[in-house]
Amino acid sequence: MTELEIIERLRLQTSAKGLVLGIGDDCAIYRSPGASEDLLFTTDQLIEGTHFLPNTPPRRIAWKAIARALSDIAAMGGTPKFCLLSLAAPARFDFDTFYSAVRRVSERYKMTLAGGDLAKSKQVACDVVICGSTPRGSALRRDTAQPGDELYVSRPLGMAAACGYRNLPEPRLSEGRKLRGRATACMDLSDGLGIDLYRMCLASRTGASLDSVPVAADASLEQALHGGEDYELLYTGRDLPGIRIGTMTEGPAGVITLNGNPLPHKGWDHFAYNSQR
Amino acid sequence: MTELEIIERLRLQTSAKGLVLGIGDDCAIYRSPGASEDLLFTTDQLIEGTHFLPNTPPRRIAWKAIARALSDIAAMGGTPKFCLLSLAAPARFDFDTFYSAVRRVSERYKMTLAGGDLAKSKQVACDVVICGSTPRGSALRRDTAQPGDELYVSRPLGMAAACGYRNLPEPRLSEGRKLRGRATACMDLSDGLGIDLYRMCLASRTGASLDSVPVAADASLEQALHGGEDYELLYTGRDLPGIRIGTMTEGPAGVITLNGNPLPHKGWDHFAYNSQR
Repeated sequence: MTELEIIERLRLQTSAKGLVLGIGDDCAIYRSPGASEDLLFTTDQLIEGTHFLPNTPPRRIAWKAIARALSDIAAMGGTPKFCLLSLAAPARFDFDTFYSAVRRVSERYKMTLAGGDLAKSKQVACDVVICGSTPRGSALRRDTAQPGDELYVSRPLGMAAACGYRNLPEPRLSEGRKLRGRATACMDLSDGLGIDLYRMCLASRTGASLDSVPVAADASLEQALHGGEDYELLYTGRDLPGIRIGTMTEGPAGVITLNGNPLPHKGWDHFAYNSQR
Repeated sequence: MTELEIIERLRLQTSAKGLVLGIGDDCAIYRSPGASEDLLFTTDQLIEGTHFLPNTPPRRIAWKAIARALSDIAAMGGTPKFCLLSLAAPARFDFDTFYSAVRRVSERYKMTLAGGDLAKSKQVACDVVICGSTPRGSALRRDTAQPGDELYVSRPLGMAAACGYRNLPEPRLSEGRKLRGRATACMDLSDGLGIDLYRMCLASRTGASLDSVPVAADASLEQALHGGEDYELLYTGRDLPGIRIGTMTEGPAGVITLNGNPLPHKGWDHFAYNSQR
């Protein structure tokens, strides 16, 4: 079973009043009665042995966990409001350093740590929920791209893979906000252009034709396409800032070509063992 | 370092606009501009080896993880709206059974699964965030008890300890809602009456005098006082439904007596190794 298949099974028929968008995008969207804003919610785990090696400095764990979730807020054009942080760790874990880093990254992105949970565990695991906001009705989504739209990324790709994933992601919050009301669709590139663009195409029921993929310094085309963890924005529309990489097509849904050749949608999938890393 | 001390260090000076209440209560409270409701947020982890034994049925894990978080919503008088569920598990984990249980418990409590995260891990760990709501300004808090208030619990205590923690918690949602506008303060009993009442007293800067502790069938007084995991409500006010167990006092803050004798505030604390279990 792949992660996509598991997520597919989770879509429920029932939906809470006020829930504008549920499972399947970077964030869920909720709107309170009478509210002038929409709230965005995303959750991201960072687990020892899966997302980072044992003995990774607590500061890096905190920073990366929060920055990855912030990237989801950026992908919807949101402004971070507050976060909830759950930490499971052994008693010998350096909580002071970890929470100092949480405080610093929260201050940097003008976000409040509003709650969380703390538990003892053999393995270090961190789960971050971030709530962001956008003016009512303005959140960017991944399921609204149209055939004929130009396709863009915020910066060249492959840097994370080229440096052995030692980079700390920089959420593209201001870029995301500037795309509100302009981009037709947007998502963040967490698992690799190949698989993430495939997800956008499936959600929007389009195909895509890539004609130029910008490759970061020291990275290979393979790393730019499938390396993952770049946390750049992938978005569609006309005459937008950023780097144009192709065009959305009529499809069939999910069919992607690079210079006319089919592009496999491989990339990081936690439960697919044919994954490339 | 105890959990209380770690939480104490996390209170930040800065606070997001709209965040009515941050760290320190059962839920954080957020209010959107113009909204007629307040949103409640709580997060709870359930971790293999800490909160449940290896080979615990996935159905039980799902149920318990969600019910514990719902108990926090009940403690503030809220109605559940949606949840975000992060799961870390080995590839051999029975995802189907787990997510079927998530669906059933969500339906039972009229709550939508709005998102989540899935990751591979050696250890099974589940982190649940639930968003609930109350009419604007009506959420119950633990820091608003007054000296002279009567103290109540929703049912007799000690049942969880008496049955070896094999029970599945039943969140007291309707009881909590009925206390809105009537109770002066409320919280849920997750770690034991001794330590949880101590927390309420510290938050409200009061003491408490217990004169009758209702003990569940087959439980001992020790289990009712310090067993934990009962997930009943603990609340204050006058002429309220439920079981009256004592009176809030002038203090000193945190000083609790049972029939005139000092009550130690021991109980379940994840990082205090003098804990009783």
